[in-house]
Amino acid sequence: MAKSKNLDLLLTVEWKDNAVVMIDQTKLPNKLAYVKCTDYHQVADAIKKLVVRGAPAIGVSAALGLALAAQNSKAKTLSELMTDLDTAFKELRATRPTAVNLFWALERVMGKAKRAKTLEDARNIVLAEAQKMWQEDVKANREMGANGARLFQDGDVVLTHCNAGSLATVAYGTALGVIRAARESGKRLSVIATETRPVMQGARLTAFELQHDGVDVSLIPDTAVGHMMARGAIKRVIVGADRVLRTGHVFNKIGTYQVAILASRHKVPFYVAAPLSTFDFESDPKDVVIEERSVDEVVKVGKKRVAPKGVRIFNPAFDMTPPELITGIITERGVLKPPFEKNLKALLG
Amino acid sequence: MAKSKNLDLLLTVEWKDNAVVMIDQTKLPNKLAYVKCTDYHQVADAIKKLVVRGAPAIGVSAALGLALAAQNSKAKTLSELMTDLDTAFKELRATRPTAVNLFWALERVMGKAKRAKTLEDARNIVLAEAQKMWQEDVKANREMGANGARLFQDGDVVLTHCNAGSLATVAYGTALGVIRAARESGKRLSVIATETRPVMQGARLTAFELQHDGVDVSLIPDTAVGHMMARGAIKRVIVGADRVLRTGHVFNKIGTYQVAILASRHKVPFYVAAPLSTFDFESDPKDVVIEERSVDEVVKVGKKRVAPKGVRIFNPAFDMTPPELITGIITERGVLKPPFEKNLKALLG
Repeated sequence: MAKSKNLDLLLTVEWKDNAVVMIDQTKLPNKLAYVKCTDYHQVADAIKKLVVRGAPAIGVSAALGLALAAQNSKAKTLSELMTDLDTAFKELRATRPTAVNLFWALERVMGKAKRAKTLEDARNIVLAEAQKMWQEDVKANREMGANGARLFQDGDVVLTHCNAGSLATVAYGTALGVIRAARESGKRLSVIATETRPVMQGARLTAFELQHDGVDVSLIPDTAVGHMMARGAIKRVIVGADRVLRTGHVFNKIGTYQVAILASRHKVPFYVAAPLSTFDFESDPKDVVIEERSVDEVVKVGKKRVAPKGVRIFNPAFDMTPPELITGIITERGVLKPPFEKNLKALLG
Repeated sequence: MAKSKNLDLLLTVEWKDNAVVMIDQTKLPNKLAYVKCTDYHQVADAIKKLVVRGAPAIGVSAALGLALAAQNSKAKTLSELMTDLDTAFKELRATRPTAVNLFWALERVMGKAKRAKTLEDARNIVLAEAQKMWQEDVKANREMGANGARLFQDGDVVLTHCNAGSLATVAYGTALGVIRAARESGKRLSVIATETRPVMQGARLTAFELQHDGVDVSLIPDTAVGHMMARGAIKRVIVGADRVLRTGHVFNKIGTYQVAILASRHKVPFYVAAPLSTFDFESDPKDVVIEERSVDEVVKVGKKRVAPKGVRIFNPAFDMTPPELITGIITERGVLKPPFEKNLKALLG
């Protein structure tokens, strides 16, 4: 695997000693701790609780969860194993509803498993496919990086929202991968990260991983995006995606939509970096379920209560950015420009 | 003073037993506690540390701070008292740079004091003027409420940012005063409050005081404003102001500008409620100092660190909303509509 300086310390998820080892992202930025999942229930729980998050990292983790299910199954026949895998598939699939990589990854592994001729064959296939996806993730991020880097100029100050970095993937990152690639190509970029309430992925994860890699990074409250743009302090925006529709509608962390509106108003280019595993070629905007997460994410920070008891909370985890607000979508096969639906067909050839 | 149900419990600042008694807003929503300031240094400190905040409440508190200075002065002559008052004036004036009510209130009290003929006369004048401003604040809020209430319709869901409520004033509030008045006139309004990072005035104060008064209130992260508007969930926006220029440029809590852009894009009317004490008839936009507040407001919530150590922070406390994004400015003399500069002259007669 390709490594940038210190990147080995930030391997978000991996298969190691017959277990799935993940960085516990709920502990960041205060502590870089790892959790070891030895059965798929633990993986499902880790996805639900945001121990691991970010669409590509969730996909790979779920695939590795199936590998754990295959490894631990007490099945005596191929048919019994497939039943066990199907049970694990359903539990893992139900963890989160919006990021499409989760479904894509699980279905891909199950599709391969169904071709197995023997019990042992199936076990091997499931693990091999999950590990292949692990490798492909890093490769796709590197390719997106190369494709996207040329869109940035030396000296650019780039705003990003949430975390679409190494911590959202196996390593290197999607949006932050593009920033890493631009820097590796010799361009001096600096990054402004939004805090990204309520879960603070920008403050806790993006600031942490960029600081870790020696990238110049500043943090702003989500409320300061418009002000910074009005001051001319932001040259470009780049974000990741949890799901991209064929029409170019992008589902991503709550707040992305309004950052895109602000970028459009201030004539700041707005880019999305998303591997093809994030694309949903079937759904229309109305079909996509926007996950509503727990009240506790909003009313408490750590143990401190920041809102009165009993107040009603809306806590949508994602929003939808329409294609007219998007300058380009960076994929591992190239950069999509509007009109996205037409150009996506051409890109996929 | 006019009282709404339970309002007596939320008297933000008052003169009581020769001291200035304030709600300690840094303790909300967890605890409704009061602090007693017996000298003006304590008042200055309370303003700096956001024990009391909100442009009108800051103005009245500073005026009452001068009353403390006059009361405690060991001056033997009128001239010595004026020197002491001037020292207090300077310390109080330097507490916060953006909200104009602070300067307006201090200058008004000092202007009156300068007319005094005797030492005792001056002491009485300073206290009387500060108390008069205390009363005028509630009266202005009631009048703004009456003027603004007619802009709202039965059933409206109204978004507000930060806290421009009873806790930002002596009582009743500016923006939330309008909402209270609309409800008192029989219209069923419900409120969506933004959290308002970094200091969380929306979560801690607006949600608290509206819940306290039995107003239907929901809380959303600042990142969810665009999404809620795209869903059609917000019918109107109303905010307060820290300073309004004669051109209609509004300086208010960081994030107001982007809420105004989002409202404009979604064709949601955007109102500002501001008493004339908030107007600055002299300055141009470039003259206004935007306070940059401490890094700790962003990197910590309570004792919990939410950002890595050493990360650079931008923490502007205010932003500027240009007049083209504002539907109307509600004052105690009437509702200003664009063009603001021309109509302000007419309003002031």
